[in-house]
Amino acid sequence: MNAPGLFISFEGIDGSGKSTQARLLRDHLAAGGQDVVLTREPGGSPGAEEIRALVLQGDPDRWSAETEILLFTAARRDHLERTIRPALAAGKVVICDRFADSTRMYQGLSRGDLRPVVDQLHALMIGIEPDLTLLIDMEPAAGLSRALSRRTAEERFEDFGLPMQAAMRRGFLDLAAEFPDRFEVIDGSGAIDAVSRTVTAAVDARLRAR
Amino acid sequence: MNAPGLFISFEGIDGSGKSTQARLLRDHLAAGGQDVVLTREPGGSPGAEEIRALVLQGDPDRWSAETEILLFTAARRDHLERTIRPALAAGKVVICDRFADSTRMYQGLSRGDLRPVVDQLHALMIGIEPDLTLLIDMEPAAGLSRALSRRTAEERFEDFGLPMQAAMRRGFLDLAAEFPDRFEVIDGSGAIDAVSRTVTAAVDARLRAR
Repeated sequence: MNAPGLFISFEGIDGSGKSTQARLLRDHLAAGGQDVVLTREPGGSPGAEEIRALVLQGDPDRWSAETEILLFTAARRDHLERTIRPALAAGKVVICDRFADSTRMYQGLSRGDLRPVVDQLHALMIGIEPDLTLLIDMEPAAGLSRALSRRTAEERFEDFGLPMQAAMRRGFLDLAAEFPDRFEVIDGSGAIDAVSRTVTAAVDARLRAR
Repeated sequence: MNAPGLFISFEGIDGSGKSTQARLLRDHLAAGGQDVVLTREPGGSPGAEEIRALVLQGDPDRWSAETEILLFTAARRDHLERTIRPALAAGKVVICDRFADSTRMYQGLSRGDLRPVVDQLHALMIGIEPDLTLLIDMEPAAGLSRALSRRTAEERFEDFGLPMQAAMRRGFLDLAAEFPDRFEVIDGSGAIDAVSRTVTAAVDARLRAR
């Protein structure tokens, strides 16, 4: 536990609905009187957002996988120092749309076998893990069609197609099995409200357990 | 030896004349028929130059020492992949104005005791060392007055004053003692031409020894 606050991350494939669910959770906790910070990665602090722009825009071959991991880790370090740690120290609930598990997944799985490098960089420069990671699990076909319906300039990581989405889903489920203490796998295939009720129930249980 | 090419770095405190000496060495080697690439850090490739701008411009407290080290390492990785390794593989002489020793010095010494972190990041993500590192050594007072005479927007690292310059000089000399096989300490206090003759003699000796 990152006492005195609570650090919650959302993970999942593109189009899984995790950003929507993160916002709904923020609203639920704020309505209950919690002091909540909703943030996202890559980004989440002014410096990290600048690094995000450098990483996500432009030619897909602009950076090697290794350089990209270093830039993501730099952004995460800034985000941690400027946003996450101060909020946790003040006793707030931090909800983060993606955190280190996304780097483990996307760089470790999709762009060569770099998981050991990702893990060593994380141990050296980041250290912290969320108290609770909510994996919004979803059929790859459903996630892909959602993701493709809202393409933006930052589309590098949504340009993979169905087989890659399926590998990503499997990778996230493997991570959940690797870290069972902090992961909760949420079925994201239902209506938004129904998924949100499952999410809030899981988080309320953690908050009561403190 | 980073065969088949030769990898030479210049190091020294601000105002030591290392950039001038790097250019004169490039001219000397090119006149002798060598295929030479003159480059610099941070920067040296299009992506690394963008990271350089992110690191060196703006408020001095913009990044923590740890985030800065990650950004410098990301820039170095890109520079290595896009500029240095291809040139060495093609048998060229690469002359680099600053390389990892500058990070060891500036971040390791001046901004907290981060040398172990710098070394671990280097081992994990960079690996390579120059075949020859020319340390242009100079009295801190002389170097500082030169550095202050050409202040630019990128002045964060020249804003330290004389005691810090003296500590930097000592730090570089300590690095030279730590890596005696690749370091040559050049007295930078003489006239530019005289210093250049010492530099070219050291490099010509290395080239003949290959």
